[in-house]
Amino acid sequence: MTSRAETTKHRLFEATLRLAGTRGLVGLTVDDIAAEAGVAKGTVYYNFGSKDGLIDALLRYGVGQLADGLRGHADEPDPVLALESMVDTALTFVAEYRGFSQILVSELWRTPGQWHETLTLLREEVISIVKQQLQRIDDAGRLPEGVQIPTAAAGLFGTLLVVALDWQVFQPQRARSDIRDSVMYLVRGVAGRPG
Amino acid sequence: MTSRAETTKHRLFEATLRLAGTRGLVGLTVDDIAAEAGVAKGTVYYNFGSKDGLIDALLRYGVGQLADGLRGHADEPDPVLALESMVDTALTFVAEYRGFSQILVSELWRTPGQWHETLTLLREEVISIVKQQLQRIDDAGRLPEGVQIPTAAAGLFGTLLVVALDWQVFQPQRARSDIRDSVMYLVRGVAGRPG
Repeated sequence: MTSRAETTKHRLFEATLRLAGTRGLVGLTVDDIAAEAGVAKGTVYYNFGSKDGLIDALLRYGVGQLADGLRGHADEPDPVLALESMVDTALTFVAEYRGFSQILVSELWRTPGQWHETLTLLREEVISIVKQQLQRIDDAGRLPEGVQIPTAAAGLFGTLLVVALDWQVFQPQRARSDIRDSVMYLVRGVAGRPG
Repeated sequence: MTSRAETTKHRLFEATLRLAGTRGLVGLTVDDIAAEAGVAKGTVYYNFGSKDGLIDALLRYGVGQLADGLRGHADEPDPVLALESMVDTALTFVAEYRGFSQILVSELWRTPGQWHETLTLLREEVISIVKQQLQRIDDAGRLPEGVQIPTAAAGLFGTLLVVALDWQVFQPQRARSDIRDSVMYLVRGVAGRPG
């Protein structure tokens, strides 16, 4: 992908996020998105094929950024501290990409959504990173007996997203460290205290 | 309110939920809702004034049901067990009112949403019930040092909603007891183990 094509794609992503913030994704048209981005309608079709193609690419791009950030901590020596770093990364991601995170939360648990298939795959991608970390914690004998790794991983993923968003939308006056500590109490409930 | 007016309102609520499940709330019109419910358009205006009035009433009604259920456990003698009963009540609520819960999660962290003011009040109503319980746990000396009650209450509220919805949408094959136990690990992380 040339840098110019990339710039155009980002511009279309950002225009979509601005519009979706007030109106949701469902009612948006290619006309709206092209006008907001200041490009011709044909540019949208050329780059993404359709509105659904654009949104699909946007969801994959955004979740890909989050997944890359989380994977960056996967190999830290202490698995509980690695999980804590992941929490920090997710909070930072939501604060930085708030519009995207709002769309993600709006669409993820809605069925039948137009992007349900893509979102199912993306959810699985992130959860598998958390699962691997919980497995490492379990291998180190530090997971309390009875914790089901798949359920705990899914729970932590959802929790992180909404706690971070709840902070941004309803409690922006709170310090990030305060929110981080609260999530850590939850994580330690699942994963045991750092050794 | 007569029983007949109540029946009509519930019929309009249910029609709205069916339509919102596939299309979201934003694009719905009074025409759509009246047609889906099989009533005249005037019936919607007579009962709710407008589409926004209807959705406002629907959100208040649904969250009111949840809040009533949670309050039913507020005075149980052991405050940690009371919180656990609340978790069970919330899971049951989401399983029973899945369509409503999906709307709630879709709209709650979206800004600026049409129903942001109502949702802010409703969120506060539920969180205050959780806060009171955490305060009771703290008064009993069973809240780990450093837990911020407002942040923990907000976190638990969001967590409960999305963990329950994630279960319904992505992991329906899991037993409710399995999900309940996972949330309990999170709750115990915040609130300490039952004495």
